[in-house]
Amino acid sequence: MTGADAPPAAAARSRRRGADLISAVYAAVLTEVAETGVTGLTMEGIARRAAAGKTTLYRRWSSPTELLIDAMLDAHPVERPTPGATDLRGDLIEALGQLVAWIVSPAGTAATRILAERHSHPALAEALYSRVFDVRGGTFTSTVLRHYADRGQLDPALLTPIVVDIGEALTLKRFLDDGAPPDEQTLAAIVDQAILPAVGYPPPAST
Amino acid sequence: MTGADAPPAAAARSRRRGADLISAVYAAVLTEVAETGVTGLTMEGIARRAAAGKTTLYRRWSSPTELLIDAMLDAHPVERPTPGATDLRGDLIEALGQLVAWIVSPAGTAATRILAERHSHPALAEALYSRVFDVRGGTFTSTVLRHYADRGQLDPALLTPIVVDIGEALTLKRFLDDGAPPDEQTLAAIVDQAILPAVGYPPPAST
Repeated sequence: MTGADAPPAAAARSRRRGADLISAVYAAVLTEVAETGVTGLTMEGIARRAAAGKTTLYRRWSSPTELLIDAMLDAHPVERPTPGATDLRGDLIEALGQLVAWIVSPAGTAATRILAERHSHPALAEALYSRVFDVRGGTFTSTVLRHYADRGQLDPALLTPIVVDIGEALTLKRFLDDGAPPDEQTLAAIVDQAILPAVGYPPPAST
Repeated sequence: MTGADAPPAAAARSRRRGADLISAVYAAVLTEVAETGVTGLTMEGIARRAAAGKTTLYRRWSSPTELLIDAMLDAHPVERPTPGATDLRGDLIEALGQLVAWIVSPAGTAATRILAERHSHPALAEALYSRVFDVRGGTFTSTVLRHYADRGQLDPALLTPIVVDIGEALTLKRFLDDGAPPDEQTLAAIVDQAILPAVGYPPPAST
């Protein structure tokens, strides 16, 4: 179909159903919060950006922040460790790669805004942790680490809140220091030099 | 001296010399950058806040950002590990305590602003690393870890850029997640569960 044959906006809108409409609304709320911040977020603004009706949105979500939390959950990566648990190192690097991809995505930008405005909107920041991060398994690398612990390949007692946060903390720090996403080699160094020693795979002696 | 006996501002100003004046100017630039951001920083604004003459400032600093870098260096903590290197764990916890105190100080707030505006002012962000952080020994815990490596208590080959960043990364992450500075117990957990294993002191087996 060429541009000239495209149906008018109203017709296009009326044809969008289910998953398509929801994708458009989720994309709209993430872009909107990046531009206006949490304080400026309105159903009107989201509806306009998604070319959807405000009534349609209210039918499904009671508030713009409810919609935002659903969009954040939908956009959040799920870790998929190798089923046989045969590549702890590779699975950890992969999980940190998912973190980097998420940070630079609209959802990562939205998360930064939500946390920057947490003092004005504490309930939303709390929901980001309890209804998005926790539901998706906690910090990045947590799902992988538990997968290997469940299969007896590392001591589950070592998976403390600090240890399951090492990969995420160092990846975010590197991002902050360099002003750019860390490359694959840096992610591998984080796994080899920080995460693996903390879960019982000590660094090799150099002598 | 009571308020009624206080000398007029001009007289008080003229009496301030050397270290006193510099302290006032350093405090002024840190408060000023927190309020106006890097983009809004001017010699006029700093001089007004310090109740000092603009000419006085220009005699010593060529620009507001040069002044800011000197103030950041002056405010940066110096790690002082036990001379005999007899308490690695305690010295690491102490270094993370210095980091927490710095984060919540005016210098920590100023650093956050400088990094938030790094895309508009890249040379200043670069100077913050090369002329402040690096001069003070790099990341927090770096000085302590090198002190123990120099005395043969840990393998210097293990002190990679990632490893000397573990404490700082986890402390900042905890701050971000909780919206409040981590307590002493959390700092001890970071040392025990993440830093010590990475420098060759493996976690104890739970079985």
